[in-house]
Amino acid sequence: MSTKKLLILPGDGIGPEVMREVARVAAWLSRRRGITFDISEDLVGGASLAEYGVPIREEVVQKAREADAVLFGSVGDPKWAHVGFDKRPEVAILKLRQELGLFANLRPAKVFDALVDASTLKPDVVRGLDIMIVRETVGGIYFGEPRGIETLPDGERRGINTEVYTTREIERVARVAFDLARKRQNSVCSVEKCNVMESGLLWKEVVTDLHAREYSDVTLSHMLADNCAMQLVRNPRQFDVIVTGNLFGDILSDLASMLTGSLGMLPSATLGAVHSDGRRPALYEPIHGSAPDIAGRGIANPIAQILSFAMLLRYSFSMLAEADMIEKAVAAVLATGLRTADIMSEGMARVGTDVMGDAIVREL
Amino acid sequence: MSTKKLLILPGDGIGPEVMREVARVAAWLSRRRGITFDISEDLVGGASLAEYGVPIREEVVQKAREADAVLFGSVGDPKWAHVGFDKRPEVAILKLRQELGLFANLRPAKVFDALVDASTLKPDVVRGLDIMIVRETVGGIYFGEPRGIETLPDGERRGINTEVYTTREIERVARVAFDLARKRQNSVCSVEKCNVMESGLLWKEVVTDLHAREYSDVTLSHMLADNCAMQLVRNPRQFDVIVTGNLFGDILSDLASMLTGSLGMLPSATLGAVHSDGRRPALYEPIHGSAPDIAGRGIANPIAQILSFAMLLRYSFSMLAEADMIEKAVAAVLATGLRTADIMSEGMARVGTDVMGDAIVREL
Ligand SMILES: CC(C)[C@H](C(=O)O)[C@@H](O)C(=O)O
Ligand SMILES: CC(C)[C@H](C(=O)O)[C@@H](O)C(=O)O
Repeated sequence: MSTKKLLILPGDGIGPEVMREVARVAAWLSRRRGITFDISEDLVGGASLAEYGVPIREEVVQKAREADAVLFGSVGDPKWAHVGFDKRPEVAILKLRQELGLFANLRPAKVFDALVDASTLKPDVVRGLDIMIVRETVGGIYFGEPRGIETLPDGERRGINTEVYTTREIERVARVAFDLARKRQNSVCSVEKCNVMESGLLWKEVVTDLHAREYSDVTLSHMLADNCAMQLVRNPRQFDVIVTGNLFGDILSDLASMLTGSLGMLPSATLGAVHSDGRRPALYEPIHGSAPDIAGRGIANPIAQILSFAMLLRYSFSMLAEADMIEKAVAAVLATGLRTADIMSEGMARVGTDVMGDAIVREL
Repeated sequence: MSTKKLLILPGDGIGPEVMREVARVAAWLSRRRGITFDISEDLVGGASLAEYGVPIREEVVQKAREADAVLFGSVGDPKWAHVGFDKRPEVAILKLRQELGLFANLRPAKVFDALVDASTLKPDVVRGLDIMIVRETVGGIYFGEPRGIETLPDGERRGINTEVYTTREIERVARVAFDLARKRQNSVCSVEKCNVMESGLLWKEVVTDLHAREYSDVTLSHMLADNCAMQLVRNPRQFDVIVTGNLFGDILSDLASMLTGSLGMLPSATLGAVHSDGRRPALYEPIHGSAPDIAGRGIANPIAQILSFAMLLRYSFSMLAEADMIEKAVAAVLATGLRTADIMSEGMARVGTDVMGDAIVREL
């Protein structure tokens, strides 16, 4: 097996802090298991803006294309709120998704047994919750043209964005959802707003047709996005896999992960199409954002970033034993009662980023 | 005072059932208080489709225009899922909003003390919750052009919708939010997705400018829609007034009302601009939908519809005493322990639609 190329992009806010704990896990793998990666690291987001004046350099996009997998931190920094739309830190992740064709964002919303009390929902409502949201990430209103702000003759201004989805785009992401469901509870809920949007109407049709043609063994249901938001609060355990577009997925996946009370615990993967040479572009990142309010204070929870790394080992590098080992170490550390501030509850021991990272490495 | 013209549109599903309880309240007002309305009633949604083949007749739109206020039930019926996009039951409410210029949808998410346990959230998280969501309802992606489904030369199809917001549209709805905030906790949170959408960028700018010019006494904050969904779950009591566009408002207001556990309790108002003759078009409707799954079973909660009527009396007819009286009757009935299925909890008495309506009329 050739050495795997891993590109690490810590980004902004707490990104670099939590990524440091991943570096310790990787160092342990190399020291104790002889597993080495060809790791390179680069700047994105506000960090790249500060150094190079752009949120991501072409060179970094190229490196990402050549890597076997990308481990991403998070981007976004209020300091750069006024740099203009084309230069905002978020362009880094949007560009990586688009240039690498990372169309399927897999976001688990899972309640860890040890953390059932961390949720703002009643324990009986969320215990055992395990939803996988499959969000389309290279289409929809995030990228559709025309877009922009125009000034009308009378001086008034208009902001415009366009939601576009094609048959092909809908089908390929739905396929990911159906395939995942078969390995889970075999049920997919497709979410759109077909009662007001034609793009949602097409979405529903295409998913229905694909299901009838190739996945009739999977249970398929349809739900409007507003109802889905309600159902996630009312009875989240009714869901197994949810598949939806870019914008609804953005909102619903954040909502679903907050239900678990363990936002700082949840990893995600964004996958592209399998290339003819068998490689599949993939980016892994925590669900949480750059959390500028707590950045630099050493209190961020590194677990989502560490579990994103485990997910990367599992899916992109087929290192199942190592992925298992890391996931078990995380569970073991939680069982000892260590908690970062975000998942703190009575009777537990509150620790910072590095103590948590250290404890996980020690459990390996 | 001339007799007030009231148009009643029960619609589909549980709409007609819960509207019957309003009729009893209105009958009481006429019998015991000598207050009579010039009431007319008509069909909308699936009910209108069945009778006339269209979700709403022009004649009904015209009646709505001439009415002093419209009391709406709910529309939507799976039976009509296949009638085609232009004929779906939902067109009734969309058309009324647009033709009457009902641009500001006011949706309270309020936790009733007696019902704090009905929420799926922990009581400590939601006790005392009182959010007002102001949702723009005649613009955005619901109505923007171009829209539709087109077939490309290669046979692939594309679904398209357009989000458009103008300075003027944003300003007038923001004004409603700021004015409301001044009578509440004096704080507005404006929600968009300015990190990916130019229409959101314009939204944020316009709200910021209006605030600086005319409302600097109100506390203004800005939040991304995905973060807002999370914050509503994490700590909903941080919000007073939320102002947002049509699509985000649809999702976030449903989410917020489900947090309260009292979806069947919440009324809403949708207001237009004040005309030169002093009249202001207004439509009142419960937050809940037509709930086809429980329609006809006599178990729906009539309170949201009754409170929508109270809101109508207060805001459109200036009948403050009568509105108060109805709201107090509802509170009193809840205090006696009567509950419909949706808000049922241990130790309470489960009743149907008519017993609940009856009890409220008796308390008047
Ligand atoms: C950073 C931002 C552009 C991004 C998005 O909206 O997709 C983020 O919220 C996410 O969900 O990954
Ligand atoms: C019925 C439907 C068109 C409507 C909407 O999406 O606006 C409903 O969900 C609402 O929120 O009033």
